[in-house]
Amino acid sequence: MSLVIIGSVAFDTIETPYGRREKIVGGSATYAALAASFFTRPRLVSAVGRDFPRKILNLLRSRGIDLGGLKIKAGKTFHWQGVYDIDPNKRTTLKTEMNVLQDFKPILPESYRRAEIVFLSNLDPENHDFILSQMTGVRLVAMDTIRFWIETKPEAILKAIQKVDILFANDEECRLLADEINLIKAGRKLQSSGPKIIIVKKGEHGAMVFGKNFVFGVVAHPCEKVVDPTGAGDSFAGAFLGYLDSSTKFNQKEIRKAAVYGNLVASLVIEDFGITRLLEVTELDIIKRYSEFKKIVSF
Amino acid sequence: MSLVIIGSVAFDTIETPYGRREKIVGGSATYAALAASFFTRPRLVSAVGRDFPRKILNLLRSRGIDLGGLKIKAGKTFHWQGVYDIDPNKRTTLKTEMNVLQDFKPILPESYRRAEIVFLSNLDPENHDFILSQMTGVRLVAMDTIRFWIETKPEAILKAIQKVDILFANDEECRLLADEINLIKAGRKLQSSGPKIIIVKKGEHGAMVFGKNFVFGVVAHPCEKVVDPTGAGDSFAGAFLGYLDSSTKFNQKEIRKAAVYGNLVASLVIEDFGITRLLEVTELDIIKRYSEFKKIVSF
Repeated sequence: MSLVIIGSVAFDTIETPYGRREKIVGGSATYAALAASFFTRPRLVSAVGRDFPRKILNLLRSRGIDLGGLKIKAGKTFHWQGVYDIDPNKRTTLKTEMNVLQDFKPILPESYRRAEIVFLSNLDPENHDFILSQMTGVRLVAMDTIRFWIETKPEAILKAIQKVDILFANDEECRLLADEINLIKAGRKLQSSGPKIIIVKKGEHGAMVFGKNFVFGVVAHPCEKVVDPTGAGDSFAGAFLGYLDSSTKFNQKEIRKAAVYGNLVASLVIEDFGITRLLEVTELDIIKRYSEFKKIVSF
Repeated sequence: MSLVIIGSVAFDTIETPYGRREKIVGGSATYAALAASFFTRPRLVSAVGRDFPRKILNLLRSRGIDLGGLKIKAGKTFHWQGVYDIDPNKRTTLKTEMNVLQDFKPILPESYRRAEIVFLSNLDPENHDFILSQMTGVRLVAMDTIRFWIETKPEAILKAIQKVDILFANDEECRLLADEINLIKAGRKLQSSGPKIIIVKKGEHGAMVFGKNFVFGVVAHPCEKVVDPTGAGDSFAGAFLGYLDSSTKFNQKEIRKAAVYGNLVASLVIEDFGITRLLEVTELDIIKRYSEFKKIVSF
């Protein structure tokens, strides 16, 4: 049980064809930690402002999430605002207010430093070294990124990628990073630049995993109603790493299973706004969905 | 062994980022029949002009394809010309010369009329009834269509769909036909309009099958070099129906396997221009690819 997740805890204002929600709880670390909490007790590192509701912090704690690394700072919580098109893959960012996450230098509590898995979620790539230098026994470094960093700090991102074991990227980011339109070539190209494992998240089309000696492909769980796609990628990564942490074996078989869990938890998240579904479902629901899914893809 | 395939036998002029080929052999029925020929002895119905090479006809015959329904008419063979973008999903049609296929009313040879499976491949939907009225023991009617018919004869297409058992459509066509952006909803909507089975071909993302009591999803075989996407969809349908014809059982288990074979043969076709790969590979190659693929998707 030693997964550290570093990213944002945020307020999101979201508009989708299914409605609008004002300043609901979001953030990459929130989604990832909740998704991981089905499998393990993740440790979260982030910062929120004094405006962040205590009730939510208690809720996160009640899901087994360690908030020892969450700073409550004077000021406002990070706020993102976006609109989704009728095609859920198309989203427009209207506002990004960094607030307390501006210049945030994550300091890990003593108890976090011997963790074996760390997830660097959408961070400024120039912060990676600072975080990793605080850790003493890390076996798996995973990172996710966003278009913003690829475009504004391309060199720092490419350097950061060289140092990780697992890179999560969606198909667009993968093509951008590798400068290659064919996803299979793009995945292999990124892999040759450092990471042992590249996980390409393809939204409604599922995911692909490029491992050392294998490729694994998995379709998405069919979803008729994509209410809010926010956090699907973060939840994929959180469930993936949470499962790996609980299994402790980082072999091919477990990586395939981890990707299926990532896939399934992501498919749950998008069924309602924000973190609603992550709070509603239980471990049992995940197990049920897993066996349903097994049937969908069997031949 | 009773699969009848009705569609075009053609010359294609194709430009892709990998090169240009002038008037090579193509056509929906050619691709579908060659793909089916790995599993069964398909019967082809089409027309070519006197300019069509005898050598190719002999080659098709040597693959076990019955050409009793292929008319050689005075005039020129159907000719399609198109250009593919670096993104293989984007193609532009530069020229469509119907030639001998203009006003072609397919008459089935006596020996074809008792066939159990018929594939109506990209035909004018107003011809469907005329063809089906010639058949006496058909158990499975399958159709594929193209954007051209959906846009020019939308009512005839929707009527035609009501009368078939299996509808093949790519994701774009599926969304267009159902007027619904969510593919899962679109698939179910089309299914409720008549066909027992909807097969949505998603190119590099694989395929989805909507059956009566099941959904089946399958990723594409990873392909690093999409040289020429022409004929991938026709080959999918040909292999799917060829496999079903050879199995004679039209149950869920066989439909899932048929979709995997369709998927795999389509992934072969795109590795080179035109029908090159379909002529190169053997049944053994298909079996090999099938077991490779089993590994790729297992968890």
